[in-house]
Amino acid sequence: MKIIGGSASSDLAGRLAGELEADLVATEVKRFPDDEAYVRIVDDITEDDVVLVQSAYPDKNIIELFLWQDALADLSVNSLRVVIPYLGYARQDKAFLKGEAVSIRALANLIQMGASEMYTVDAHSEGASRYFDVRWNELSAAPALAGHLKDLNIDFVLAPDEGALERARQVADLLNCESDYLEKKRIDSHTVEVSPKSLDAGGKSVAIVDDIISTGGTIVRATEQLREHGAKTVIAACTHGLFVGDALERLKVCDEVFCTDTLMSPVSKVTVAGVIAEALGAQRD
Amino acid sequence: MKIIGGSASSDLAGRLAGELEADLVATEVKRFPDDEAYVRIVDDITEDDVVLVQSAYPDKNIIELFLWQDALADLSVNSLRVVIPYLGYARQDKAFLKGEAVSIRALANLIQMGASEMYTVDAHSEGASRYFDVRWNELSAAPALAGHLKDLNIDFVLAPDEGALERARQVADLLNCESDYLEKKRIDSHTVEVSPKSLDAGGKSVAIVDDIISTGGTIVRATEQLREHGAKTVIAACTHGLFVGDALERLKVCDEVFCTDTLMSPVSKVTVAGVIAEALGAQRD
Repeated sequence: MKIIGGSASSDLAGRLAGELEADLVATEVKRFPDDEAYVRIVDDITEDDVVLVQSAYPDKNIIELFLWQDALADLSVNSLRVVIPYLGYARQDKAFLKGEAVSIRALANLIQMGASEMYTVDAHSEGASRYFDVRWNELSAAPALAGHLKDLNIDFVLAPDEGALERARQVADLLNCESDYLEKKRIDSHTVEVSPKSLDAGGKSVAIVDDIISTGGTIVRATEQLREHGAKTVIAACTHGLFVGDALERLKVCDEVFCTDTLMSPVSKVTVAGVIAEALGAQRD
Repeated sequence: MKIIGGSASSDLAGRLAGELEADLVATEVKRFPDDEAYVRIVDDITEDDVVLVQSAYPDKNIIELFLWQDALADLSVNSLRVVIPYLGYARQDKAFLKGEAVSIRALANLIQMGASEMYTVDAHSEGASRYFDVRWNELSAAPALAGHLKDLNIDFVLAPDEGALERARQVADLLNCESDYLEKKRIDSHTVEVSPKSLDAGGKSVAIVDDIISTGGTIVRATEQLREHGAKTVIAACTHGLFVGDALERLKVCDEVFCTDTLMSPVSKVTVAGVIAEALGAQRD
């Protein structure tokens, strides 16, 4: 097996090659002065089983992904599987209003050209898979997140809203602790209080777990509420750390913030290489 | 006919609608905090003949182009023609080395999905058309450039190299003046002089005409050489003004710099709306 890491996912691709004891393919990537990308696969990968790893975010990395696929189309590889650790544009998975682009459908149509299978981690959409004609493999980062949290003596795992509860529950199960979600409670016509639905945060160590942290606004508000409820420690964990603008600065209200390496950030403390390697290995047998 | 202008080409789309007496379609474009794009076609364009106008540069505008095409796929339009005034990634139109992406082929495969015809202006590649299965229409910006130059009493039009001579000649023909190209002449083992191949720049008003100005380095060097040869006035004109970094500042060595509106810049003084309108109108009859 040969692994190609695009510039969005070069660290993860290296770890994946390590996990799989596979070769990392020598490549060349550069940007021209006008910021157009150039990619080249340097090693001979004729007849190889190739895995291309490149997160689809931001836009320039999506274009780079298409360039890798184009370069691969000229090489006689035996098989091509595409790993898109962070699948951007999954937010818009249907047309809510007439005339809207279904951005993940657009991406799916472009991504699947030439690939036989696609792998992604914690897609921010339940409907994204329907647009992929190639075999869709969605992996969970819960084991990676739990691996780091288990050293932090967490009392319970909290989802920032009910929709995210399933992910929090998966992590809690791996930690053998409870899970809950933040609920808005209307106190009177002027006041809305946000607090855990059933558990008491007083004196507890709480891990807020979500799939994406973007501006961090949700996590900052949740942390402030948990502090008011007497939480001892608040950890924020997510799969995909976008950390838009000064998000990491604002998130210093938390005792710790971390994410996986589906996107590269200063707090990409855990890797999803293990879960991806397991899935790729399983497919191979 | 209905015109949709993407955010790379909104000014030009407006002018094109004016030229064609066609309706400019109401749209909504925005960027989420994480910089992902959202597009929506607001007007009803069912059964209409639609023209989508969006330059493919930089990367984020290419992604936006794909989103427009996706939105259009859901609407029952009568016909769709895509105008890409500046076709980015045309530089790499073949694999010079094994394993290289042929970037314009990648783009072509993605662009032509759903469209019946494509139009572009002065493609920076002779080979780009071969990758498009849809009908390829390449238009010349020479009339637009000549329209502005004719008020500036140009003595001759100069191409920055021999490969660009044909474009310079087209402009010169419209101005009823001569054309030439810059040639490197080796004076001795240490000195290479660059000067017009046959014409004398002394006391003359010279227009340097190229398809793309990127960093402006070529034009700056050419202007300096022409000044040394006694040129009275040096004007730099191009179809596509990329003006990377501080290019416009450096180009102040010229008496005037201008480009068309295939890309929006502070010196997009002339429009290609006329040549595009003519081509679209001719196709329609």
